[in-house]
Amino acid sequence: MEINDLDLVVPKLGESRIPSPMSGVNFVADDAHVLYHGNLKTVESYQKAGKKPPCFEMAGPREKIYFDPSKLKCGIVTCGGLCPGLNDVIRAIVLSLFHHYGVRTVFGFPYGFEGLTFRYGHVPMELNPAKVQTIHQQGGTILGSSRGPQEVAEMVDTLEQMNVGMLFTIGGDGTLRGARAIAEEVERRKLKIALIGVPKTIDNDISYVQQSFGFVTAVSEATTAIYSAHAEAAGARNGIGLVKLMGRHAGFIAAYATLANSDVNFCLVPEVPFTMEGFLRALEERLVRRGHAVVVVAEGAGQDLMGMSAERDASGNIRLGDVGLFLKDEITAYLKSKGMETNLKYIDPSYTIRSMPATPSDSAFCLMLGHNAVHAGMAGRTSMVVGYWKNEFTHVPISAAVSKSKHMDPKDKLWTGVLSSTGQPREMI
Amino acid sequence: MEINDLDLVVPKLGESRIPSPMSGVNFVADDAHVLYHGNLKTVESYQKAGKKPPCFEMAGPREKIYFDPSKLKCGIVTCGGLCPGLNDVIRAIVLSLFHHYGVRTVFGFPYGFEGLTFRYGHVPMELNPAKVQTIHQQGGTILGSSRGPQEVAEMVDTLEQMNVGMLFTIGGDGTLRGARAIAEEVERRKLKIALIGVPKTIDNDISYVQQSFGFVTAVSEATTAIYSAHAEAAGARNGIGLVKLMGRHAGFIAAYATLANSDVNFCLVPEVPFTMEGFLRALEERLVRRGHAVVVVAEGAGQDLMGMSAERDASGNIRLGDVGLFLKDEITAYLKSKGMETNLKYIDPSYTIRSMPATPSDSAFCLMLGHNAVHAGMAGRTSMVVGYWKNEFTHVPISAAVSKSKHMDPKDKLWTGVLSSTGQPREMI
Amino acid sequence: MEINDLDLVVPKLGESRIPSPMSGVNFVADDAHVLYHGNLKTVESYQKAGKKPPCFEMAGPREKIYFDPSKLKCGIVTCGGLCPGLNDVIRAIVLSLFHHYGVRTVFGFPYGFEGLTFRYGHVPMELNPAKVQTIHQQGGTILGSSRGPQEVAEMVDTLEQMNVGMLFTIGGDGTLRGARAIAEEVERRKLKIALIGVPKTIDNDISYVQQSFGFVTAVSEATTAIYSAHAEAAGARNGIGLVKLMGRHAGFIAAYATLANSDVNFCLVPEVPFTMEGFLRALEERLVRRGHAVVVVAEGAGQDLMGMSAERDASGNIRLGDVGLFLKDEITAYLKSKGMETNLKYIDPSYTIRSMPATPSDSAFCLMLGHNAVHAGMAGRTSMVVGYWKNEFTHVPISAAVSKSKHMDPKDKLWTGVLSSTGQPREMI
Amino acid sequence: MEINDLDLVVPKLGESRIPSPMSGVNFVADDAHVLYHGNLKTVESYQKAGKKPPCFEMAGPREKIYFDPSKLKCGIVTCGGLCPGLNDVIRAIVLSLFHHYGVRTVFGFPYGFEGLTFRYGHVPMELNPAKVQTIHQQGGTILGSSRGPQEVAEMVDTLEQMNVGMLFTIGGDGTLRGARAIAEEVERRKLKIALIGVPKTIDNDISYVQQSFGFVTAVSEATTAIYSAHAEAAGARNGIGLVKLMGRHAGFIAAYATLANSDVNFCLVPEVPFTMEGFLRALEERLVRRGHAVVVVAEGAGQDLMGMSAERDASGNIRLGDVGLFLKDEITAYLKSKGMETNLKYIDPSYTIRSMPATPSDSAFCLMLGHNAVHAGMAGRTSMVVGYWKNEFTHVPISAAVSKSKHMDPKDKLWTGVLSSTGQPREMI
Repeated sequence: MEINDLDLVVPKLGESRIPSPMSGVNFVADDAHVLYHGNLKTVESYQKAGKKPPCFEMAGPREKIYFDPSKLKCGIVTCGGLCPGLNDVIRAIVLSLFHHYGVRTVFGFPYGFEGLTFRYGHVPMELNPAKVQTIHQQGGTILGSSRGPQEVAEMVDTLEQMNVGMLFTIGGDGTLRGARAIAEEVERRKLKIALIGVPKTIDNDISYVQQSFGFVTAVSEATTAIYSAHAEAAGARNGIGLVKLMGRHAGFIAAYATLANSDVNFCLVPEVPFTMEGFLRALEERLVRRGHAVVVVAEGAGQDLMGMSAERDASGNIRLGDVGLFLKDEITAYLKSKGMETNLKYIDPSYTIRSMPATPSDSAFCLMLGHNAVHAGMAGRTSMVVGYWKNEFTHVPISAAVSKSKHMDPKDKLWTGVLSSTGQPREMI
Repeated sequence: MEINDLDLVVPKLGESRIPSPMSGVNFVADDAHVLYHGNLKTVESYQKAGKKPPCFEMAGPREKIYFDPSKLKCGIVTCGGLCPGLNDVIRAIVLSLFHHYGVRTVFGFPYGFEGLTFRYGHVPMELNPAKVQTIHQQGGTILGSSRGPQEVAEMVDTLEQMNVGMLFTIGGDGTLRGARAIAEEVERRKLKIALIGVPKTIDNDISYVQQSFGFVTAVSEATTAIYSAHAEAAGARNGIGLVKLMGRHAGFIAAYATLANSDVNFCLVPEVPFTMEGFLRALEERLVRRGHAVVVVAEGAGQDLMGMSAERDASGNIRLGDVGLFLKDEITAYLKSKGMETNLKYIDPSYTIRSMPATPSDSAFCLMLGHNAVHAGMAGRTSMVVGYWKNEFTHVPISAAVSKSKHMDPKDKLWTGVLSSTGQPREMI
Repeated sequence: MEINDLDLVVPKLGESRIPSPMSGVNFVADDAHVLYHGNLKTVESYQKAGKKPPCFEMAGPREKIYFDPSKLKCGIVTCGGLCPGLNDVIRAIVLSLFHHYGVRTVFGFPYGFEGLTFRYGHVPMELNPAKVQTIHQQGGTILGSSRGPQEVAEMVDTLEQMNVGMLFTIGGDGTLRGARAIAEEVERRKLKIALIGVPKTIDNDISYVQQSFGFVTAVSEATTAIYSAHAEAAGARNGIGLVKLMGRHAGFIAAYATLANSDVNFCLVPEVPFTMEGFLRALEERLVRRGHAVVVVAEGAGQDLMGMSAERDASGNIRLGDVGLFLKDEITAYLKSKGMETNLKYIDPSYTIRSMPATPSDSAFCLMLGHNAVHAGMAGRTSMVVGYWKNEFTHVPISAAVSKSKHMDPKDKLWTGVLSSTGQPREMI
Repeated sequence: MEINDLDLVVPKLGESRIPSPMSGVNFVADDAHVLYHGNLKTVESYQKAGKKPPCFEMAGPREKIYFDPSKLKCGIVTCGGLCPGLNDVIRAIVLSLFHHYGVRTVFGFPYGFEGLTFRYGHVPMELNPAKVQTIHQQGGTILGSSRGPQEVAEMVDTLEQMNVGMLFTIGGDGTLRGARAIAEEVERRKLKIALIGVPKTIDNDISYVQQSFGFVTAVSEATTAIYSAHAEAAGARNGIGLVKLMGRHAGFIAAYATLANSDVNFCLVPEVPFTMEGFLRALEERLVRRGHAVVVVAEGAGQDLMGMSAERDASGNIRLGDVGLFLKDEITAYLKSKGMETNLKYIDPSYTIRSMPATPSDSAFCLMLGHNAVHAGMAGRTSMVVGYWKNEFTHVPISAAVSKSKHMDPKDKLWTGVLSSTGQPREMI
């Protein structure tokens, strides 16, 4: 993929002149950058062409900051569906604002962008370290969430009237677009409000971000459903356990969950097309040979087989057909036509997965993600998200983050690992 | 409930004359009985009326046994839906037959009663301690299962031809009726084959049995779904988390899960009638007051509100309407009619719950249950199940066990505990 | 064991004349009693001798109560070591006092009996439903605890001055003796203060109580340590995994944990004497045959082999020698003398086990235990504990509960199950 | 840290000429390299100085391989202490050898390097996909392990006589040195045997490897001990919960576990010196202010305070003093001297942590690590380990991997996160 370094430049509100109150830490220089490409040859090819190799600004605390912490008020919103780690990120932002910078006023706006819109009448929650100390032990979000955009002007009115200088938006693609629209309106009004996003995608499909929070937990939690699917399948003649996992455009959860659970026999993802005939033949063959099968399907897989709808939900996402129910019906009908009595159990663990608290390593990741969001905002960055790239936290402009979504390459090690773990045919067409 | 002691008498194949090979144990006397009623006054009222207070035969090893272990072959089948602990019970039976009595041949018949029917061609598995040593660590059943009855004569043919002297049937109501039919055919043919049931009902609704295996695990596992329902509900404006739990005729799982999870606001069970209006009003009131609600419903609750169908599944159970989907639709429609935008998440964790391995205490319970099934068979009992009553293992004739099902009394401590935990109205009509 | 019905009579503060505010529940009649013996023959033998068969008073809500809830103040203390379920019991007591009876003042006295003694300066916590709503999700005790007795007169002074009419003491043997001493002083001063104990013994060794809270959780949690011991043992040449579990006088935790974990090869408990030679020979034989071994030992086992000390801890319990370290040294020395290089890993999971939150079924049990403690107190009972006997909650006088401790019978089903699960010799002497 | 690209060059047995049997995958070019430095400025500074920026060879399948799979025999050993994921790595190696390359003979040598030494008489295990299919569900290692080196010549004799062409050594620092010694002897004898290491360090302290397997699981499992320490501490007056975690030279486990568990008040690691006085003063201050404290200490912390011993264990590691017991005694003595009665519970969960199965994401990581070990060996690499650097699997020469150990930088984001999470003073001296 050819990308341009200029696309990765992060907007700033202005120059940072105030000395940071943090001490004893490694400040990150403003010219510290993380190479987008890790392969030396690729880097050299940019250089030979006289171009700067594309780089992310490195995240972290700056020696000089833009905002005066003693006067700053901040806000946080969580938008869209639940994801493990939401409370961890809220907590990390609050702790960093208080302990690293001495900011004393942090509003939690309830129910996503609704909370920024006066006419809903939601009362902002005042957040402080005592209030958030143990919230990461619970799943969900203490702020509540909602889907869909709100009037941009109204939201900026709220920020202006409440004198909020920094807004943290934790949410997915739609939320980031909303945050960008707010940033544009802020600029139009010549306000000084930083918009910092923490990208939330349980599917791990945001571009320029190698790992998003909650993903590791989702892979862990998927284990239970696969375990059950296998016990059900193995316990019945021609038993089939069918599990639908998250993954609208990218099958990362399905793929990793398959790697971690050797009981999966078929993994279906959006990136790897298949025909119903190809899949059903392979499934039949497995049943004949082994008497049972476990199928994991990412929700975005096989959409072409169902006839895509043009409908969209409140967040602006295309409404996917339910591939789980579709497969259930197709499998049952096919095997019946073949005279095989079967026993299919369909498990959709999505709500259970996304509402769990973060696993400990995910939780630690969220903490550092939240800290770096705060550092970015204090340094006057705006219209950006905190990313993670090649083991470093980074600044990514929202424009880049929403430009496309990340996918698995079916020829890469991840999918190769899946194939060798499941034993499924490389092509089912 | 008025019951007669004679109803609790367990059939025997004949007199026990062979000395048990067990040593160093407390043998149970044949006249050891466990009182059905634990209240002294009730016992005395029987005595005053000149009747024997109803009693169960006490389970346990007998000093004299009926079968010669060196010549005995045994069989095991698991029937119906999965239940935590199936593999524990299989393991316990095999270990006891081998280690306590020296029986060397134990067949696992695959896929329930199908495995006893030649024409399916299922090959019996030979079971021994090495094979079952760690199977209790997995959910499901290593034997596989199936629903529905098979030709009784064919099954007895199989037992006769394979020279099986003792058959353990692990299954629910339908299975027990099947076992009784086999026992009757055995008697008609004047064979000496003991039929010993281990009652499997995740709902804990078998009469004369205070606790059935898997129930404690089911209550534990229900916790995850309720947790998720609460996180989803609390994370959305007018959020509702709806969880359907097992419980066709009795709401024990729903009730205990509610006691163990303080987040439940409404618990609906078959034993406590409600009207849709009553429930919806109470739910609306809760939403207005607290902004979210968690509802747990046993699958058999509210069947009268849906119009019962007369359809039955392969096991002969009436096909229940899906009260979860029904409530989902009713709630959504009602609140919409009231102008409340809501956010309902419906979770049906049944497959996940029933396919889990048993919790440690349930596992220990299964072990002793299986041992006592073996002791009963070796002592020549037949057409009975192993029960558990007032902290003792017991023998219960199948005829009694299938005569009716156990229910919660809505005025008793369990339901009273539920009401004080949820705060729901005692009557929603 | 010969016991006398009179020993089971529970003291009362006076006659109950006030109508209970509870409605829609099954009130328990004052003459409802639970038979101590469940075997009909034993009951009849008492009757033939002209004696009343021994019975417990049945627990539960009474139609007439002793205290006027509107004027009543209550207190709760937790004493001694941690045990899963402490917070559940606290919560249940508070919820029942508020919701069932309308009591409005409940003090949590901090740090056990210290909290009742002015000179420590601990400030009582005011408890209400909001404060206790989710405390059962955490292990430990929100009240804090301490060991050892305090001045009885001082504690009664506190109760008197704070006008406390009912004190719930959650603790073990020492705590119950303390509660009885308080009850005696209360009587001497002609006060009307009910003393209701909830017996806390993770070892499950209190007489006349078939199951104490936390026990089921302890068995569950022991699983992790045994799992690790097995992985360590199996991963090394002549590997030995040694796990010390709770059980000062009774090996119930060790025995049930062994039943639930098939990896245990030796289970050592206080009730079954062994010699070091006998055990070491059997262990050596196992190592030679299988290459590794897992040993579970209850802390009170083998005390005779170490030389009992006369020392006592602050709770008045005899300080046991550390049988874990003792066995570790003995095993290592013995096998070294036999020229076997070994690899022993010793795991003592006690703090981890006892500080866990209760499992869901244990949690539900705690809830009903706490409710029944409240019902007992409201009915004017005193100097008693809430027991559980043959599936019923009961009232047990403290005098009976502390008179001796409960043990396993090595000839009974539990130990027989252990032997067939471990394959260890019945006698190691 | 100044490093030289030449230090990262991986030895090869010879040229790869055989076409890989894999198809449909992205082969990795032999000149694909992963930059050691991710910061563009650092890369440019090498270039300006006319030096090649240091790079790792990228791991992955090669189009041409060195060994003929049809004739190749392979071996696997696991050495040193247990670590989560050992069985995952064994499984991954076996599956990749069989399914990716068609190798049919894989020996598992029992008990580490002992298994390569004839005189121990350990019989090699033949490994195949069926045998390893579910081993990753158990902790420990199915091969067994041992500590310490063995005669190099003897081990090479074994490899030669059994015609083993590729040996996978899964172990820590000592094991890698052993593998390098074997590789040197192999070279001296002009044999063609590849030595591929999979670095095992639960402490995550191997240089040039950003994440080692088992680490994420260790952080997860540490949570239980910290939870218990907190419950114990909070449940007693001046309660202190002290947890010792792994971390001989680097405090990564302690630091991440602290980030993931907000209950930790003090985190002590080898990288951050402290004096006993400084720490005790801070602890006392916390107790006075909050009444309890949780302390997490890495085993290698504070060694200077105890007087280092020169003793080494069988693996050649310096025997550390037990900082847990040391702190326990020092804390108790100090607080006693201050007249504070305290209650300290010390928990050492090391055996439990290291014997757990890998968490799902760790398990998926192990799978890919094992695959890449196989790809490296098939491509004729030797005397190297498989690393992970900036999100890519890499080849690292053993000489580099054992040259020094990795540490936390106390000024970096990780430790800064710890400080803001615990609230402990930055300096305790």
